[in-house]
Amino acid sequence: MTARPLDQVLAHVDQSLDQSLDRLFALLRIASVSTDSAYAKDCAAAADWLVADLRTMGFEAAARDTGGHPAVVAKSAGGAGPHALFYGHYDVQPVDPLDQWETPPFEPRIATAPDGTKRIVARGASDDKGQVMTFVEACRSWKAVTGSLPVGITMLIEGEEESGSAHLFDFVKANRADLAADVALVCDTGMWDAGTPAITTSLRGIVVEEFKVVAANRDLHSGVYGGAAANPIHVLSRIVASLHGPDGRIAIPGFYEGVEDLPADILEDWKGLNLTAQDFLGPIGLSQPIGEKGRLLIEMVSSRPTCDVNGMWGGYTGEGGKTVIASEAWAKLTCRLVSKQDPVKVRDAFRAHVRAQLPADCKVEFFGSRGSAAISLPWDMPVLARARAALTDEWGRKAVTIGSGGSIPIVGAFKADLGLDSLLVGFALEDDRVHSPNEKYDLKSFHKGIRSWVRILDALAD
Amino acid sequence: MTARPLDQVLAHVDQSLDQSLDRLFALLRIASVSTDSAYAKDCAAAADWLVADLRTMGFEAAARDTGGHPAVVAKSAGGAGPHALFYGHYDVQPVDPLDQWETPPFEPRIATAPDGTKRIVARGASDDKGQVMTFVEACRSWKAVTGSLPVGITMLIEGEEESGSAHLFDFVKANRADLAADVALVCDTGMWDAGTPAITTSLRGIVVEEFKVVAANRDLHSGVYGGAAANPIHVLSRIVASLHGPDGRIAIPGFYEGVEDLPADILEDWKGLNLTAQDFLGPIGLSQPIGEKGRLLIEMVSSRPTCDVNGMWGGYTGEGGKTVIASEAWAKLTCRLVSKQDPVKVRDAFRAHVRAQLPADCKVEFFGSRGSAAISLPWDMPVLARARAALTDEWGRKAVTIGSGGSIPIVGAFKADLGLDSLLVGFALEDDRVHSPNEKYDLKSFHKGIRSWVRILDALAD
Repeated sequence: MTARPLDQVLAHVDQSLDQSLDRLFALLRIASVSTDSAYAKDCAAAADWLVADLRTMGFEAAARDTGGHPAVVAKSAGGAGPHALFYGHYDVQPVDPLDQWETPPFEPRIATAPDGTKRIVARGASDDKGQVMTFVEACRSWKAVTGSLPVGITMLIEGEEESGSAHLFDFVKANRADLAADVALVCDTGMWDAGTPAITTSLRGIVVEEFKVVAANRDLHSGVYGGAAANPIHVLSRIVASLHGPDGRIAIPGFYEGVEDLPADILEDWKGLNLTAQDFLGPIGLSQPIGEKGRLLIEMVSSRPTCDVNGMWGGYTGEGGKTVIASEAWAKLTCRLVSKQDPVKVRDAFRAHVRAQLPADCKVEFFGSRGSAAISLPWDMPVLARARAALTDEWGRKAVTIGSGGSIPIVGAFKADLGLDSLLVGFALEDDRVHSPNEKYDLKSFHKGIRSWVRILDALAD
Repeated sequence: MTARPLDQVLAHVDQSLDQSLDRLFALLRIASVSTDSAYAKDCAAAADWLVADLRTMGFEAAARDTGGHPAVVAKSAGGAGPHALFYGHYDVQPVDPLDQWETPPFEPRIATAPDGTKRIVARGASDDKGQVMTFVEACRSWKAVTGSLPVGITMLIEGEEESGSAHLFDFVKANRADLAADVALVCDTGMWDAGTPAITTSLRGIVVEEFKVVAANRDLHSGVYGGAAANPIHVLSRIVASLHGPDGRIAIPGFYEGVEDLPADILEDWKGLNLTAQDFLGPIGLSQPIGEKGRLLIEMVSSRPTCDVNGMWGGYTGEGGKTVIASEAWAKLTCRLVSKQDPVKVRDAFRAHVRAQLPADCKVEFFGSRGSAAISLPWDMPVLARARAALTDEWGRKAVTIGSGGSIPIVGAFKADLGLDSLLVGFALEDDRVHSPNEKYDLKSFHKGIRSWVRILDALAD
């Protein structure tokens, strides 16, 4: 093993930041909105732009057909360390409401915040073009200084993340050999705060259910039948009320099977992060966490499971009144899963619980169930400690390992289909306005993001 | 007193039934939904149609401004008997869910049931256009045969019954002299069964509430906030679940204040009617009365109070899924009142109960409350015996006196403001699907309803 000139590569990053920004801006100018077919050509153009750019760095790159928007697959050999599969996406969210943008969403600019912070403002600045380009620029600097990469890299940059990665799951299955690697690197998550880097080591899974409770065979006049006929809105309300206990725990028998407590050292780390109700809930007008008593707020939103009704409706919901007893009432519900909870078992436990609450004369029907298990990266994953040290070196503050409350289902496919654990590192901040007007990415996130990947690639090769 | 040619008038009813139906169909074609302002013109058109029709019969008629939808007031002198104020309404309930109608709700038709029964199918066929037209057609036949009416009649046909008679109370107060009469006749109730006519001597009162529970100051991503942020749909569900106890009683403290048990003889009569769950609930697909344990089914639906959520909604209710925790959740609710329950006290007890269930961080707002007390007519009312005899003659079975589960608040105003007791006679049947898709009115109800009013008008004049 030869010594790698890490400092020279970092210096190259600093010196070429203006050119790095020029390239990011070129990509941001392409309106690659994946959910609207009117932008299909823009999605193809973004893929082509990436292919052309990666080829200039010596990657063997192509825009590959997926059945939907193309996926960019690019490969370059590297040092003797583990081969890494990098994942990101070039597609972006729609821009509406357009009138709330201060400047056009696809005309990127550098804005200066009142506190002097420089920000890249454009749709996709943070999610995910800015993040993708931190990795691409890190590779470029390694190649520029040393002529090669510390580790071999395959990039998979898709164009349908914002529309549920509709075709990527099949694409991964169909291209196992082509995407083979030792570890996956994902850049689509955030920092803990503006000064503290983070590695996301768990993602909650999900169970999605829609169901209806049916009572009478038609809507009834409440004057005629009120007092005698079962009201499905009351029945559904009792069912929803029965989902949680007064201790904040989910009261579905068997629901917690597979839920594990955090390792003691991680719990200590999380206590140290001191996520307060005032900081987290204050901005949304709340003050009291409603999760399990005795748990930290950060546990409630990342390492504990949830059960939330996302929508509920029944009876007359229009203007004025209607003295009706409805025939049926509906709910949409999602459970967020953690640790080893099995989505099928959770779904079945939920359904059994609902059926057990159902009074005589009422029926229940379930629709549209789907689910994915939570993803927990092994705490002893070899690359985790290396990446953590690299991030700590770059930011001068210990990198934390956190759980994300959300779900990135493709990470599950990397494990299931490619056998890969994923290292989730990203530089987004909570105020990036992701999915909202005036999306931004701090210039510091971009610059130090590139430097962070330079260090991580170096650390992986050790 | 000259002998009145009752048989000739009844024969005229029989001979002109087709024309009577044509007129009813013309009225049914007008989409006079009063609760939705989009149908304001249709309400005015229905009033105008009635005015024009009544004028052809020699009534002095006008569509009168009430501040809301117009009320039709029409007058005709008659014989020497008591002057009668007839009340009905031309407005109808909304038609949703529209996809459950077998034919368009405002395209009336005659359908034949499997047992050969002919039915008029349309929104308003029973409630209340069909019922109103039984009285109008009875008057028409008296006029056609004798040139006059057995008793003087003032008709008051309003357009806001389904929206709580919002402006009629003030209208009655402001037009006392114009509406002066000796007795009120109301046609908005039902038969005991398809062969047994009924006079309704008590009506439940009503309290109407709409309210929303508010948690966060905006809709939240359930992946980010799920497990920590209060979910207003859960909170509302707990409130709704808390409205009833396992014994079927309403669990709002103070709710039963003023509720009285039936007189022993009436309770005995009602036991004799033997209203079974199979007969009453079977046709709507239910089998178990959900009211207070230990009460007769007929008590539950007529002499006991109720509390029903008529509509509830919150969060995402569209196609597919959205992982949102809503900011607010809504419900519409009605309580049916009996005996001496005070609507204001009941409303206040309800609101206090809701507030007592409300967790930290949640707010509740109440909208659009209105109410009316229950009404009991004097059992010894003079016209009651006459009407009962007339109905018994027409139907060949003794007319029964019953309590109605529904509310007709204006009947209270007739007593309070005009000094009138009301004779409530109607020909609706329990399976009329009032307020539901495919509302119908049996052709027999319409035909014998007209004949019944012909006889009652004759009996009143004796």
